Amino acid sequence: MTDKQPTDYGAFGAKTSVVALTVSYDGAGFAGFARQQGQLTVQGELERALALLFRHEVITVGAGRTDAGVHANGQVVSFELTADELAQRSFEKLRTSLNALTPEGLVVKSIEEKPAGFSARFSAIQREYRYRIVYGPVPPLFLARYAWWVPGDEPIDVHAMRQAAEYLVGEHDFKTFCVAKSAEGQTTMRRIDSIFIFGMQHLGEHSLVIQVVGNAFLHSMVRVIVGCLVEVGLRRRPPEWIEEILLARDRRAAAQTAPAHGLTLWDVRY
Amino acid sequence: MTDKQPTDYGAFGAKTSVVALTVSYDGAGFAGFARQQGQLTVQGELERALALLFRHEVITVGAGRTDAGVHANGQVVSFELTADELAQRSFEKLRTSLNALTPEGLVVKSIEEKPAGFSARFSAIQREYRYRIVYGPVPPLFLARYAWWVPGDEPIDVHAMRQAAEYLVGEHDFKTFCVAKSAEGQTTMRRIDSIFIFGMQHLGEHSLVIQVVGNAFLHSMVRVIVGCLVEVGLRRRPPEWIEEILLARDRRAAAQTAPAHGLTLWDVRY
Repeated sequence: MTDKQPTDYGAFGAKTSVVALTVSYDGAGFAGFARQQGQLTVQGELERALALLFRHEVITVGAGRTDAGVHANGQVVSFELTADELAQRSFEKLRTSLNALTPEGLVVKSIEEKPAGFSARFSAIQREYRYRIVYGPVPPLFLARYAWWVPGDEPIDVHAMRQAAEYLVGEHDFKTFCVAKSAEGQTTMRRIDSIFIFGMQHLGEHSLVIQVVGNAFLHSMVRVIVGCLVEVGLRRRPPEWIEEILLARDRRAAAQTAPAHGLTLWDVRY
Repeated sequence: MTDKQPTDYGAFGAKTSVVALTVSYDGAGFAGFARQQGQLTVQGELERALALLFRHEVITVGAGRTDAGVHANGQVVSFELTADELAQRSFEKLRTSLNALTPEGLVVKSIEEKPAGFSARFSAIQREYRYRIVYGPVPPLFLARYAWWVPGDEPIDVHAMRQAAEYLVGEHDFKTFCVAKSAEGQTTMRRIDSIFIFGMQHLGEHSLVIQVVGNAFLHSMVRVIVGCLVEVGLRRRPPEWIEEILLARDRRAAAQTAPAHGLTLWDVRY
């Protein structure tokens, strides 16, 4: 602390800067993103590491509150530091320290300074989720932890899934696709910008990726959407069924929620 | 067993057919491929499942004896069945039964009948291994179990690695690249057909893949080669050093053996 730090106003009322971490994690190791007493959570572990480094409580904000089991490739987590704390160490050093202090299954990929007022949650304009499915008679091996295995012998009808997905693009009331308890008294209007379904190979295994991009998502929304699209892919429902259940505005109209381990919070745009 | 099975010569001296399994496994769960008393091995588990299904001992032959920790995408395992046993169930049914009886981390991908005299090991004409490296200051997350993390800040010199690899292509005495004990009294001549080094993305993370194709490999040969190529990539040695150590025919001339978990037996050609 020296008087050469013009933005340092001392411990109380210090001028602060916003820092954003880009974080990846394997959902299997955590009881979700959001801090919970007595549970291993991503937010809890990051805040514990930050408190150790900066010797005071650090409150973080995440772009998406992923559920237990859901992975993240590019979760964004923001918090405030004083200008003095910011000057103490380089972001490279900070990243190394955080990666040394956080548990396996959680990696801080990059760190950036953001403009005042930035919030990983409220400044986000677009979120991308990807859901991986392995379809066929043989279960995935290397993808077992990162894809939902849907057994089947006949080809899955990707064309019908794409047709069905089109009904969801745009601004809609997604009440059907929301786990009921979290919808109480809050708007269930959301905007989906695109849903693309494509094949991809990872670690030598083929998967079907459902990429969903939108402004924000309701609780379990992507997983309920995937559960319904798979019903269509398996020819148990026609593509138009998706429009019908969307208009029903009732969770009971939809199919089962696809399992958490197939889902990854892929990217957040600001 | 009926007299309608013209190839059935009964329990003794029965005419046999050769069956080949294509098997994937996560090396982390096994003490290697080869059967070992009191250890969980790929061959041991496959033979245990086959014995349960066919009610007698089944001896298998694998295309490559992968070490503990080494993965396989397309390991091939052959064994004999009588024509009668072959007729008892479809290959689809057999695959499902085997996948139900083998432990997690091991998947039978496909089953084929092969011509008489076929051996997964001795009929193989080409084997492909792939080694994954994640290079950079940030450790891999989803690839942590499937790639060797080589920390570093400056770019790795892929061009120099490719130059170095060229010295290894062709028929050579690979004594330098072999763990000594297994070389006693046996030829260490092998043929490498190609070594390609390319970038690849898996599960959102970038890796450098070293693809080595050859007729057959000595014990730990690919891992010693990778260890040496990384020395060159990190600019600790010039590309020509590889030629020098190849000609030395001495394991002590080479670099450290790259860790097992980065290596996958990718494919076997017949």
